[in-house]
Amino acid sequence: MSSAGKHKVTLLAGGVGGAKMAEGLAALPDVALSVIGNVADDDNFHGLWVSPDIDTLTYSLGNVIDRNQGWGVADEGHRALETLNKLGADTWMSLGDRDFGLHIYRTMRRRRGDRPSDIARDVARAFGVAAEIVLPTDDTVQTRVRTDAGWLSFQEYFVRERCAPEVRELAFEGLGQARPTPGALEAVRAADLIVIAPSNPLVSIAPILGVPGIADAVQASAAPKIAVSPFIAGKVVKGPADRMMQALGERADAIGVARRYRGLAASLFIDHADAALGGAIRAEGLEPVCSRILMQTQEDKARLAREIVDLAFAPAHLEANA
Amino acid sequence: MSSAGKHKVTLLAGGVGGAKMAEGLAALPDVALSVIGNVADDDNFHGLWVSPDIDTLTYSLGNVIDRNQGWGVADEGHRALETLNKLGADTWMSLGDRDFGLHIYRTMRRRRGDRPSDIARDVARAFGVAAEIVLPTDDTVQTRVRTDAGWLSFQEYFVRERCAPEVRELAFEGLGQARPTPGALEAVRAADLIVIAPSNPLVSIAPILGVPGIADAVQASAAPKIAVSPFIAGKVVKGPADRMMQALGERADAIGVARRYRGLAASLFIDHADAALGGAIRAEGLEPVCSRILMQTQEDKARLAREIVDLAFAPAHLEANA
Repeated sequence: MSSAGKHKVTLLAGGVGGAKMAEGLAALPDVALSVIGNVADDDNFHGLWVSPDIDTLTYSLGNVIDRNQGWGVADEGHRALETLNKLGADTWMSLGDRDFGLHIYRTMRRRRGDRPSDIARDVARAFGVAAEIVLPTDDTVQTRVRTDAGWLSFQEYFVRERCAPEVRELAFEGLGQARPTPGALEAVRAADLIVIAPSNPLVSIAPILGVPGIADAVQASAAPKIAVSPFIAGKVVKGPADRMMQALGERADAIGVARRYRGLAASLFIDHADAALGGAIRAEGLEPVCSRILMQTQEDKARLAREIVDLAFAPAHLEANA
Repeated sequence: MSSAGKHKVTLLAGGVGGAKMAEGLAALPDVALSVIGNVADDDNFHGLWVSPDIDTLTYSLGNVIDRNQGWGVADEGHRALETLNKLGADTWMSLGDRDFGLHIYRTMRRRRGDRPSDIARDVARAFGVAAEIVLPTDDTVQTRVRTDAGWLSFQEYFVRERCAPEVRELAFEGLGQARPTPGALEAVRAADLIVIAPSNPLVSIAPILGVPGIADAVQASAAPKIAVSPFIAGKVVKGPADRMMQALGERADAIGVARRYRGLAASLFIDHADAALGGAIRAEGLEPVCSRILMQTQEDKARLAREIVDLAFAPAHLEANA
């Protein structure tokens, strides 16, 4: 526990699952949360720099997220996009008016030469986010998805094509040359607990850990390290992780996740439905922890977060309640 | 009359008065209209290039203008601006969401290297505008207003300060070096009739005529040239032209307008209320034409436009109806 009386928890998170886990941890009064988000989904739309994963974190933690769809802002309009559509622009990427305000602001500051991580921090503060939102790198890293129709940007694959094409290969443009931000390294180094969110291991967590220096820092940390499986009975709650893992020859289940996080996490929260996989997960070197990992309500999120934090700092208490 | 059987009318226009005159001329079935708009009100907001006068033309001629306020788009929202405000940006310039869509598009194309005049033409077409909207220059020209508090950009003076400060001096940054667009020169050269709209002579018309080559082209044209006074009984319908003309030592009435357009227009439409100024206007070398020049309804606009076109091409008919 830190001197401020709170556990410093650093979460690696991407996508909607990552944002939900962040909300759960942020709800715990004894946790000081830093979230290292994923920037590899970022892309340029209409000349504006859009950062979907970071914005989902900000909107979720700022409590302005559209809770029906899990992303975007509540009370959103689409007038700007209607104009762009009228003008013949490609508008398959659903960008709302409130959302556009943020993209305009981010782009203005990037053009001014401000560091993306500083912009993300300022945006989070303006949205009243108490947690630190940290970028893994200030360099541009972009996920590319090879399909039978060629290489797509992540948003082309994810939004325009609705994950329909089979994924043949993933690449992360710029990842090998990316430099970690001091903030990300410090968030890992200073953490009392490192959590890997139930995000897509391939396109949310891999491009965070792949920034040179970050996986090393996680491995070097003496803090407890706990991952949460995004799979429940071989399916993910949202997104294409199951089909992607399968298509790329990995196991599309909690065992596949354990293989991915071997050496990076000591424990893996899995769903009760996957209890039978416990032995195989242990064989991968991770300690399975059975729980209810589906996060539908704010209570679900906080309860799972509580269990994770208690496993790290009060395991006896957790077992007593189990 | 052109080979297409229509009078080629070229209108010099800025502001709301300019857009109304454009609407009137566009409503005439025997007119093929080109409007040379004003770009000196353009400015950068939040990293986006905003072109208020050109957009007012486009929205008016595209029939999506907010008819209550005379500018901006109907059914507009302000969610993007709310986000920008939340992020601490200066949001005194009222930019709507539909409007933002256009600014995003324009900025994207400008950054791509497209000519502003090509962008304006494409935007007008996308909005279903039949008239040609022509930029006087593709170079950046910006009106600066000196007040007792120092130099302001035009929008700072006009929107942020609501025209409250006394105007001590006007300057047009970039005007001396601006090159006219081929489209503007051609619109003047090919015109069967040149009309100067009831716009602010100082900040709407002057920066059009001031683009090197444009005033010369107007003077060289053998077409009839007709101006419309923005003043009615020493007051303008909208905007600061009256106070500006006065502050800068010019006459704030139709005589002041006549002095401005001497050698550029042969006739000046004035309101019946200003009939007594006819002699002084004639003394300035312009033929006064008394009419009802206030344009409130679409009928007002078309009727005034009809009178202007008839004065040029069927003066006998006009007199017979007078």
